[in-house]
Amino acid sequence: MTIARNRIAFEGVSHEIDGGRFAAKVIAGRDFTFEADVFGDGHDRIRAAVQLRADRGGPVTEAEMRHLVNDRWAAEISVPEPGLWWLTLIAWRDLFATWHEDTAKKIAAGQRVSLELEEGRRLVAEALDAGAALKARPKKALTQLLARLEDADDAGRQSLLMSDETRTLMRETGPRTNLSQYGRDLPLRADRDAAGFSAWYEMMPRSWGADGSHGTFDDVIDRLDYVRDLGFDVLYFPPIHPIGRTNRKGPNNSLTAGPDDPGSPYAIGAQEGGHKAIHPDLGTLEDFDRLVAAAADHGLEIALDFAIQCSPDHPWIKEHPKWFDWRPDGSIKFAENPPKKYEDIVNVHFYRDALPSLWLELRDVVLFWVAHGVKIFRVDNPHTKPFPFWEWMIAEVQARHPDTIFLAEAFTRPKVMKRLAKIGFTQSYSYFTWRHSKAELTEYLTELTREECRHYMRPNFFANTPDINPYFLQTSGRPGFRTRLVLAATLAGNYGIYNGFEICEGRPVPGKEEYLDSEKYQLRQWDFGQPGHIKDDIRLINRIRAEHPAMRDFTNLRFFPAHDDDVLYYGRFDKDADSFLLFHVNLDPRAPREFGFEVPLWEFGLPDSASIEVQDLLQGNRFTWHGKDHTLTLDPDTRPYAIWRLFPPGAARA
Amino acid sequence: MTIARNRIAFEGVSHEIDGGRFAAKVIAGRDFTFEADVFGDGHDRIRAAVQLRADRGGPVTEAEMRHLVNDRWAAEISVPEPGLWWLTLIAWRDLFATWHEDTAKKIAAGQRVSLELEEGRRLVAEALDAGAALKARPKKALTQLLARLEDADDAGRQSLLMSDETRTLMRETGPRTNLSQYGRDLPLRADRDAAGFSAWYEMMPRSWGADGSHGTFDDVIDRLDYVRDLGFDVLYFPPIHPIGRTNRKGPNNSLTAGPDDPGSPYAIGAQEGGHKAIHPDLGTLEDFDRLVAAAADHGLEIALDFAIQCSPDHPWIKEHPKWFDWRPDGSIKFAENPPKKYEDIVNVHFYRDALPSLWLELRDVVLFWVAHGVKIFRVDNPHTKPFPFWEWMIAEVQARHPDTIFLAEAFTRPKVMKRLAKIGFTQSYSYFTWRHSKAELTEYLTELTREECRHYMRPNFFANTPDINPYFLQTSGRPGFRTRLVLAATLAGNYGIYNGFEICEGRPVPGKEEYLDSEKYQLRQWDFGQPGHIKDDIRLINRIRAEHPAMRDFTNLRFFPAHDDDVLYYGRFDKDADSFLLFHVNLDPRAPREFGFEVPLWEFGLPDSASIEVQDLLQGNRFTWHGKDHTLTLDPDTRPYAIWRLFPPGAARA
Repeated sequence: MTIARNRIAFEGVSHEIDGGRFAAKVIAGRDFTFEADVFGDGHDRIRAAVQLRADRGGPVTEAEMRHLVNDRWAAEISVPEPGLWWLTLIAWRDLFATWHEDTAKKIAAGQRVSLELEEGRRLVAEALDAGAALKARPKKALTQLLARLEDADDAGRQSLLMSDETRTLMRETGPRTNLSQYGRDLPLRADRDAAGFSAWYEMMPRSWGADGSHGTFDDVIDRLDYVRDLGFDVLYFPPIHPIGRTNRKGPNNSLTAGPDDPGSPYAIGAQEGGHKAIHPDLGTLEDFDRLVAAAADHGLEIALDFAIQCSPDHPWIKEHPKWFDWRPDGSIKFAENPPKKYEDIVNVHFYRDALPSLWLELRDVVLFWVAHGVKIFRVDNPHTKPFPFWEWMIAEVQARHPDTIFLAEAFTRPKVMKRLAKIGFTQSYSYFTWRHSKAELTEYLTELTREECRHYMRPNFFANTPDINPYFLQTSGRPGFRTRLVLAATLAGNYGIYNGFEICEGRPVPGKEEYLDSEKYQLRQWDFGQPGHIKDDIRLINRIRAEHPAMRDFTNLRFFPAHDDDVLYYGRFDKDADSFLLFHVNLDPRAPREFGFEVPLWEFGLPDSASIEVQDLLQGNRFTWHGKDHTLTLDPDTRPYAIWRLFPPGAARA
Repeated sequence: MTIARNRIAFEGVSHEIDGGRFAAKVIAGRDFTFEADVFGDGHDRIRAAVQLRADRGGPVTEAEMRHLVNDRWAAEISVPEPGLWWLTLIAWRDLFATWHEDTAKKIAAGQRVSLELEEGRRLVAEALDAGAALKARPKKALTQLLARLEDADDAGRQSLLMSDETRTLMRETGPRTNLSQYGRDLPLRADRDAAGFSAWYEMMPRSWGADGSHGTFDDVIDRLDYVRDLGFDVLYFPPIHPIGRTNRKGPNNSLTAGPDDPGSPYAIGAQEGGHKAIHPDLGTLEDFDRLVAAAADHGLEIALDFAIQCSPDHPWIKEHPKWFDWRPDGSIKFAENPPKKYEDIVNVHFYRDALPSLWLELRDVVLFWVAHGVKIFRVDNPHTKPFPFWEWMIAEVQARHPDTIFLAEAFTRPKVMKRLAKIGFTQSYSYFTWRHSKAELTEYLTELTREECRHYMRPNFFANTPDINPYFLQTSGRPGFRTRLVLAATLAGNYGIYNGFEICEGRPVPGKEEYLDSEKYQLRQWDFGQPGHIKDDIRLINRIRAEHPAMRDFTNLRFFPAHDDDVLYYGRFDKDADSFLLFHVNLDPRAPREFGFEVPLWEFGLPDSASIEVQDLLQGNRFTWHGKDHTLTLDPDTRPYAIWRLFPPGAARA
């Protein structure tokens, strides 16, 4: 009857994903609230605690939970360092607490409690008997208490046993009767800060050469100041490997490339090497190492692309033909999405004879770049490769390097996107790029920040990418870029832009979400100083993100009432850090909006008529909002958004 | 890399309770819809099936699932007989289906497909190679197809491979590539019909004696006709065991009993015996056996009470002192809820020295009554006994007798009530007794019929019990009894009344939810023929329940718009059985309500202007409702409710 042991029930555990099949994600060193339903039979007092241990071994730490309401319990806990951890729950019946409560009621009702007092004394004696593992001080306290109880009359016993001191002592030393354990160990993945809070800047090094020449890593080193000055902390490159020549794509994705066309960096692999090689025109591995070091000196991390497809010239094809699909005529099978064909790309096969050799090689590609200082990988199209591969590979890498971050570039069906996050991707591309209206943004962000996925999926809101020139930005002009910037950077913890965004580049291949003359297929020259840029906004927003603790945990987002369907109004509050920000964004890039809004005084327990101090984080001035209802005008040409810091009464002053 | 095997993901499984920790419940022989999210990486066609096997062994049966939308899949399945079953999910990639779809697109785009046709031929050859386990007929069909493909030119191959016949053949015989299995076996508890659909009548045999004498089982036999005529199918008795004399309660729960007072049947155990004995005044075990047999002849099942507490005179106390709590002065610990004391009752202790001997004895008590023909047990206050005991005990009994039913009488906190259902109780008392308003009933029934608990908790809606004389019925008069009857009997699958309800007995102990002169403490004499009874309503409602298939699955309940806050309007539809019922209930026992309501034409795909045939199941007349909007008057004194059967176009005519 081993089943008999777990007398206390555990349910609805907050960080349990699919019955413990997947790890919930937290940030190492940051408190989080762990919750569960815990309850026993009958009316006895129970107590509960959460236990935490590292997968690599070490001691179990324990945090007692507190009862909230309706059998819901909670504890604030944190994980000290990145890695895989395990959580579980215990609970027990506290017989002395039950006795204490029952006896207090009987005393209040004027009942005789002599027998109860003797029962209480016996509970103290049992605590001492069971207390072999107790430290000297509580053991001494119990011994003394017991001696005094034995000498006392009923009045003395009652006074001793009902005292707060005895209650506390017994709470700390009493035996854990019917100690029950939750039947599952729950995995918990702790990541470093950048997993949840990072500002990405994406660029192609080859376009950053001087005077139109093919850019090099040294050219990038020269421009690290520029990226850092804008306030970014991750600098991300699409693939930097040799590019195939067979069926190379020409400008604007044309089927024939001229002799000088550089080809798509996603057609990886050529005579010069594959996924561990560097495109000769960018520099050498030593140049790359210097770049990684220089970036670190600037407070920047380099993120690389991990794109598994190969060009038809990739060395693997000859070295490992069994990793690929071959056709009846002996030709290699190109990528396709019938009837479309992608003849500059071939895909590997993950099963049959490719398992495990290909899996090991792909893991080693990642470990190779980790050895060269790269700890962030943006993974191209992970949803077209097997889930088990990612789950295994990410676990393998993170077991060796717990601070590695993987961003899933999967614009796919909702459940597939979430599955990738569950199986280990640290961050996820999202549907943000296609959410524009107030209703769409509110619904989507509510899902991301309030539903279960908040425990395992961290969105990274890219405002644009080399693959996505959003229709909205193609016609919105500069106000639209400013709006999308502030939304991306303040609705999510992680966000990014792809270069050109800062100068409002939006010229499309007509009718498509593609950039005209995309650098995916040709070198570009960028003039980031041209008039109309939004670099001041970028600097400001990145500074606000860096300076205000409320920006760090994206799940603290709450929407508030603004009486205009084109105005998104939201707050990010961190009460522990006294950091309270409000945001108004005019979603209409073409017309000013004058609207009423409600200052969320209720969030601070204030009446509608209260006053609250506020700072305009764009202008810097401080003043007071009197009462709940206010109006504001946001003009897309001058001020498409507003950001406020609140100073509620009782909060510390900055 | 065993992880590599399960390439296809399974999530959101409909009948998975707490990660497979508990069994979902179904009715043996009835179809139910099993659903799950199933998806793979990439764009290949996948297929999925649910597998079912009996816990006691036997073959695995398999039902292929169909894709609904958004990666959701479903299958209608059923379990052939009561018992414990196990479900799991499998899925695989169908390479021929993928090939077929891709090739069709290429052909439609005018592309050359010679190579594709050879690839298709090879898939057929592989199906044959892998098909060692195939039956003769499909093996022959594959062999013939392959021979014809080898002889054919491209046009012939295309015609053969793209045909529906080949598609079907390959669907049935193709290998299951990347066969993946869900990582969990899900327990499924199948019960007989009465678990989900039953009408209970509760009475105390001792009050059914002739001329005020103590009733006997023979007296009950004489009145089985009465119960069956009302349309009930379960006849339930509170405890029938010897009653203790120590601290026996007198009439109206008074502390002192006179010499002739019978005491509470819940003070179980006396010199004459305990939980396996019968109160001598009721008869002998042989009398009881005759009663069970006579009841069966009337289409009635006998349900017994299983109440674990003991009177201070119970033989167990002397035979098994270690099953009880003793006080420092050597006295037994009575039940209490400080400062209240229950001195006619002592509780057993389930742990320490009582485990396992007490557990085994309690199980054997149940098995004893099962051996005497009782298969339904109403369990008294299960929430004050350990969850593990119930989980173990119910499993032990149902492993031997899969048709046993346990009803949990637990009016406790919501999560505890649900937990008892999860750990094995077949049916559950509910909060129905305290839900009266339209908003309360709508919210509560929506929870019971739409949320996850519908898969494991089957409510039994008692309109009253010996312990609950609802405040509402104390003052509502006859209209209130009619209303609560129709609500209990038509909102849930299981419902019950306690005798006296049919004659609108509602006299309370003033200010309490207790009956005055309750038969819990004294004999009563009932005149069930007295004026003002509602036996006609009971017969009608029980007949409607029995005759209309829509009444059998309580989760088919849907609420519809009636424009009056005192009118509850709902439907019970079973499309497979062409059974469509509508209900209007006036919740106000004091005033007629005239109200507008909408005929749910939309449920049948009909426009608002459509007509639909309808039968008034109270009057019997049939007519037509033209259009969606109608009005109705329900007068509490004459017609507090209406029940309609719809005959939508296309449905079979009764």
